[in-house]
Amino acid sequence: MTLNRRIVLASRPQAEARLDNFRLETVPLPALQDGQVLVRHHFLSLDPYMRGRMNDSKNYAAPQPLDAVMIGGTVGEVADSRHPAFAVGDKVVGMGGWQEWSVVDAGTPGVLRKVDVSGVPLSAYLGTVGMPGVTAWVGLSHIIEAKQGQTIVVDAASGAVGSVVGQLAKARGCRAVGIAGGADKCAYVVEELGFDACIDHKAHRDVESLGAALDAAAPQGVDGCFENVGGVIFDAVLSRMNAFGRVAICGLISGYDGQALGIANARVLLTQRLCLQGFIVSEHMPLWPLALKELGGLVATGRLKYRETIAPNLEAAPAAFLGLLKGANFGKQLVKLL
Amino acid sequence: MTLNRRIVLASRPQAEARLDNFRLETVPLPALQDGQVLVRHHFLSLDPYMRGRMNDSKNYAAPQPLDAVMIGGTVGEVADSRHPAFAVGDKVVGMGGWQEWSVVDAGTPGVLRKVDVSGVPLSAYLGTVGMPGVTAWVGLSHIIEAKQGQTIVVDAASGAVGSVVGQLAKARGCRAVGIAGGADKCAYVVEELGFDACIDHKAHRDVESLGAALDAAAPQGVDGCFENVGGVIFDAVLSRMNAFGRVAICGLISGYDGQALGIANARVLLTQRLCLQGFIVSEHMPLWPLALKELGGLVATGRLKYRETIAPNLEAAPAAFLGLLKGANFGKQLVKLL
Repeated sequence: MTLNRRIVLASRPQAEARLDNFRLETVPLPALQDGQVLVRHHFLSLDPYMRGRMNDSKNYAAPQPLDAVMIGGTVGEVADSRHPAFAVGDKVVGMGGWQEWSVVDAGTPGVLRKVDVSGVPLSAYLGTVGMPGVTAWVGLSHIIEAKQGQTIVVDAASGAVGSVVGQLAKARGCRAVGIAGGADKCAYVVEELGFDACIDHKAHRDVESLGAALDAAAPQGVDGCFENVGGVIFDAVLSRMNAFGRVAICGLISGYDGQALGIANARVLLTQRLCLQGFIVSEHMPLWPLALKELGGLVATGRLKYRETIAPNLEAAPAAFLGLLKGANFGKQLVKLL
Repeated sequence: MTLNRRIVLASRPQAEARLDNFRLETVPLPALQDGQVLVRHHFLSLDPYMRGRMNDSKNYAAPQPLDAVMIGGTVGEVADSRHPAFAVGDKVVGMGGWQEWSVVDAGTPGVLRKVDVSGVPLSAYLGTVGMPGVTAWVGLSHIIEAKQGQTIVVDAASGAVGSVVGQLAKARGCRAVGIAGGADKCAYVVEELGFDACIDHKAHRDVESLGAALDAAAPQGVDGCFENVGGVIFDAVLSRMNAFGRVAICGLISGYDGQALGIANARVLLTQRLCLQGFIVSEHMPLWPLALKELGGLVATGRLKYRETIAPNLEAAPAAFLGLLKGANFGKQLVKLL
């Protein structure tokens, strides 16, 4: 009998999430039924949205149930199959959760997808050629509607989403300005990812200082903002928006522990006739094939770069996740499983 | 020689606008040149946007110059004409400013428009069948994109814009919820204008109390918000928005004296995937003919109601304007001129 190790939500955070909100369990794997597939997980994706699911509050998705396996995207390999569309050895991406194995009802549309690893590494299907990459693509192309010559600002710029936003913006003829935490991340964003500029928010902690840095990095003002963080950083970018600027609100990670999270100056929405749009990539499914095609092509040809931070095993996942919420990762945060 | 009385901007407000920011002058009218028309103003429109123009700050429009006639929409009658398209006695609408007469270069596109007063009173061309009415129409139809069965909330609901928003929402099969200041305005909004409900914000001065009133008035939540006020009222409505709700930001009158004006809870933009769009009706000129056609027809057939507050003469305009900024008017604020 194969044993499966998994991490469940043990308790809900009071404010900041902590290690004791998680619990590692070992349970036997059930026998496969007709139509099911057994997947051996190679990598688990850690993403900021998971923090929201840990709360028992109104949100766009149902809360993560207590004592159930934490939700999460996974890539892996079919280890056994009782479904005709999947064979042992197939590389697959799915929502297997924080565990080493999963048993999947493979006939349910969308739960398991075979991927081609001839040109794209398997782990990239959790990042640049997966949900984070598509998030960047949808926000930039369909919310911001980025056009050649515009200036696009993205925060968390070295992360799984932000890194793609800026590189796609460059590919579309925009000026790409990143905001990231720390000189090493900023150097990476400019020198390796090819952004035009990157502002270290740790060196500019208030709206005025960040605003002055933006004036230098975005001398023509800001036409599009891809927002992952919120708070002071968002306020600073809003204050530099040009008329008819567009803002894609993808995440507000600075408020995920329940901090008050407002917009200091609402006046600019009117005076600059801004459009702010919150969005969730899973509600734009018709765009995924087009996005994945472009992203996969860019990765396979080396024109879209990314970096990964990989925690070594399942038991390291909670600490890696808490680090992600504080920006301790560099690039896409993954967990190596089996 | 005809003398013209006019009000100019004497000084810029430090915070709240005051009477001494204005100055009444009497000047001779220049002789008409070829292509010019002399208009005798019957009514001047007072509108909140004028407060923004009094400041010397970055805004969507150039500041009102000091010592020049205050900007403003006017209706009147052609008193003399040296332009072939206008004859003495024609009823016209234009941007004549805070003065009794204006000399207009009538060939400049858009500066002077003849109107039909057979079914629509002349003054209505400054309100329901004018800029405020078109503002309501554009915001509701093209920003909120109101659809049958939705709940639409509008503040300053008894005013020139808000009153049209709610009545148009009803005509489109929506639930219309107003917010207004005082029991008399709320009674008017429900009983005369036909809104489904109206909340007196003077009886609900904090977000929690307003939110509870909204829960009762909008039991299915809020799908569309037409925002004229900002601040606590806006925060309360945002907190009740349904998924994919749309917000037209038309005005933020609670902050026009320079008060801090923020959005307390930005998280709801993401969790409810809201779209917030600031807009200015003068940037949607292609929609005006369609809007004016519907609005004129509804007024002419008595299906679109409005109320006017009319200051008796030009010298009463500054006090009437300051009153408008505090909600002292009831319905469209006009000034009777000649």
